[in-house]
Amino acid sequence: MLTYSFAENSNIIKYEYLYRCIKRDILQGVLQPDVRLPSKRAFAKNQNVSVSTIENAYAQLLLEGFIYSKPRSFFYVSSFIRPVMRKSIIDKKIEPSSSKKERVFADLVSNRTSAHQFPFATWAKLMREVISKQKVWLMTPSEGQGVWPLRQAIASHLRAFRGLEVHPDQIVVGAGTEYLYGLLIQLLGREKKYAVENPGYPKIWKIYQANGVQWIPIDMDQKGLCPEKLETSRAQVVHLSPSHHFPTGRVTPVGRRYELFEWALQSPERFIIEDDYDSEFRLLGSPISTMASLDEAGKVVYMNTFTKSLTPTIRISYMILPWALLTQFREKLGFYACTVSNFEQYTLAQFIQQGYLEKHINRMRNGYRTLRDRLIQCIQQSPLQRYGEIQEEEAGLHFLLKVRTSYRDEELVQRAAKQQLRISCLSQYDARLARKPTRTFLINYSGLEPGKIEETIIRLQKCL
Amino acid sequence: MLTYSFAENSNIIKYEYLYRCIKRDILQGVLQPDVRLPSKRAFAKNQNVSVSTIENAYAQLLLEGFIYSKPRSFFYVSSFIRPVMRKSIIDKKIEPSSSKKERVFADLVSNRTSAHQFPFATWAKLMREVISKQKVWLMTPSEGQGVWPLRQAIASHLRAFRGLEVHPDQIVVGAGTEYLYGLLIQLLGREKKYAVENPGYPKIWKIYQANGVQWIPIDMDQKGLCPEKLETSRAQVVHLSPSHHFPTGRVTPVGRRYELFEWALQSPERFIIEDDYDSEFRLLGSPISTMASLDEAGKVVYMNTFTKSLTPTIRISYMILPWALLTQFREKLGFYACTVSNFEQYTLAQFIQQGYLEKHINRMRNGYRTLRDRLIQCIQQSPLQRYGEIQEEEAGLHFLLKVRTSYRDEELVQRAAKQQLRISCLSQYDARLARKPTRTFLINYSGLEPGKIEETIIRLQKCL
Repeated sequence: MLTYSFAENSNIIKYEYLYRCIKRDILQGVLQPDVRLPSKRAFAKNQNVSVSTIENAYAQLLLEGFIYSKPRSFFYVSSFIRPVMRKSIIDKKIEPSSSKKERVFADLVSNRTSAHQFPFATWAKLMREVISKQKVWLMTPSEGQGVWPLRQAIASHLRAFRGLEVHPDQIVVGAGTEYLYGLLIQLLGREKKYAVENPGYPKIWKIYQANGVQWIPIDMDQKGLCPEKLETSRAQVVHLSPSHHFPTGRVTPVGRRYELFEWALQSPERFIIEDDYDSEFRLLGSPISTMASLDEAGKVVYMNTFTKSLTPTIRISYMILPWALLTQFREKLGFYACTVSNFEQYTLAQFIQQGYLEKHINRMRNGYRTLRDRLIQCIQQSPLQRYGEIQEEEAGLHFLLKVRTSYRDEELVQRAAKQQLRISCLSQYDARLARKPTRTFLINYSGLEPGKIEETIIRLQKCL
Repeated sequence: MLTYSFAENSNIIKYEYLYRCIKRDILQGVLQPDVRLPSKRAFAKNQNVSVSTIENAYAQLLLEGFIYSKPRSFFYVSSFIRPVMRKSIIDKKIEPSSSKKERVFADLVSNRTSAHQFPFATWAKLMREVISKQKVWLMTPSEGQGVWPLRQAIASHLRAFRGLEVHPDQIVVGAGTEYLYGLLIQLLGREKKYAVENPGYPKIWKIYQANGVQWIPIDMDQKGLCPEKLETSRAQVVHLSPSHHFPTGRVTPVGRRYELFEWALQSPERFIIEDDYDSEFRLLGSPISTMASLDEAGKVVYMNTFTKSLTPTIRISYMILPWALLTQFREKLGFYACTVSNFEQYTLAQFIQQGYLEKHINRMRNGYRTLRDRLIQCIQQSPLQRYGEIQEEEAGLHFLLKVRTSYRDEELVQRAAKQQLRISCLSQYDARLARKPTRTFLINYSGLEPGKIEETIIRLQKCL
């Protein structure tokens, strides 16, 4: 009779263990099709278990189709053909992600936030309050566009600090801007052609690419994207960051903005996506006003994120839809659940409402200004000064460093990597793939530890 | 000279206020193109503010292109054409989402979790620990596939409780299954044809629809989806829930599973998406084993979610990619940031590692079993018993109630709505749009408050 040893498997429930053993024997052909299994009673006696243990094991096997029953309650092994499955050869080639970490002394590419900058105490306090006071709301599924208190808080914040009048109903909250781009493509249409700024942020091209959408880079002049080039590109949607272009830091003046509106007004199919991703972090003067605030025709979809103002590791972004698109959004995409957890939506709503966000942004802005000033001062006092010229230092959390060297951009990046510096060059943001060397570093200092400034400059110098 | 009153605007910084006033006057044509603005000094005296206040206001206007400067530091209003923007008429038609709430006595459709079921105390404790001990990790951007400790915890959990051997590298964590479907479409290809079970879960069709992908419903027999129909459909990807079909609750037996593998093995382009969304909640016996555990050829993408086992308001799901697809995933989609916040990823990792998830699932399962037994008992003791027949009560968090009535399905749903019951009928899950009335209610009791059982049954009866 079938016998399985329980010895080594004390932590699995007995019927579950027997079920696994019999299943394995069936799959391995030890138990052949149409073989009769022992009666429950005899098997139970043999295994020294209760009859109900055997019953449960058989029931599970029966349910999953490994055995079948005949009258008088005997069970037999099912007959089925098991296809030959060949292991794909790729298995061994893949490198586990966990081993791929390179050692980095300073990262001048990523948008990290240092642990000491995040208001952990406030966040933890608000989270605790939300958990203790709003249990029912925490368990009630969020509306697809986000919970009402968060959308209300965002609308008030925009009114007070950006002079932007929006209704909470127009706001769609989502887990990161990348996710919202994906939604926008579904909303505006996959058959449309999307224009993007060149140079620009490579992730945006990659998202259009990954979504199988036609996209076209449009060259910029000093004022931003050229409406004539936009017209000839035959694009229907244009993706802009007019208040703070990445990576050049350029601001599109109001006259050019109206020219872009003029372009959009030519067809009901045309729209402008305004990506205002780190407008809060202009280090001089006020944030630049938005195109959305000039929009009376419902042509602008405004996007922003808490990635920069809070931390990139909490994934909350939002977009503001013009009313006409909102109707379509609800019809076509209203079925989607919101991608942000209620716990964080309600906590962030409190964080904004109670004025913590504004305080935090001001503190961060001061911190970044100090960091930038110190970094620039150190560069100016170092031998690097003779090789380089700093540009666009008001741009936000990065500036450009144009260097005199004979190395090409790729060589510069590689040489920096040998110094354990993660850094990028301006040509990496050219959608037409680096036609000519720019010899210009992009210095994103938002995650640079103040104590590492001197050493970073020394290492940078060694690359030249 | 230009004069603006500060009286009512004491809470805005002065330069910001002046900037707004001048900007408004330029936009409204009060200040015409090429008009010279007052000198800083004279304007400051007139407004009784410091010269630097005027300087800052002018600087912001200059930066945004509302004014331009000429030698000897005078400023002039820029000349630009402001297009006529007509408000779209749709504005007034839209109904704010906040007013659309219908009054509902009992919701037998949604997957709500009652507030008393969620382990708030444990979750809050773990969140607090994570915040106090893991500050640096909380601020370090997650790998795109999710933070390592969470993926490790999921892998251990699957090994221990589902007999599924996966490597943490194969796991992709995302903000909800809907989001992961979107990623999978990007990964497997938009040109492919996706087969889905009929009847099935309408959200899945809607997601394929919204992503502009061809999808085809395939009718099921008692054993699940038919491989012959799949073959003739010319689909390359099939979306299955073989361990617990929604809404019928059917289990696909091992023989049929291997036939489906046979289908998938015919071409390297063919894949099976196994959606195991609430496998933890079989109320009888063990969870049904997965197709992924039978897969030796890298044909199955396994998906599951913490929506059911924790709460739908925390958005964490995951998928397990076969190695071959993983390489493609990293190449094509590796640039995407993870959509789940680090705070919740690390907290959930602890929740799983410390054994709380398993305890919670067991408690929930017991609670659901009690709720279901009581609900079924009440139905059997009520006059409803004579009109109805309960089916598939082991299915999970819902069962079917077939009723004898002359009303059609839509009428039944409407009549229930008048009784303030949200309920659905089986025909609503037919992708070919309700060919014939099923007169079968789908009773999702997961969010039903025990105190409302009797009254719910009385109201249900009134619909018949």
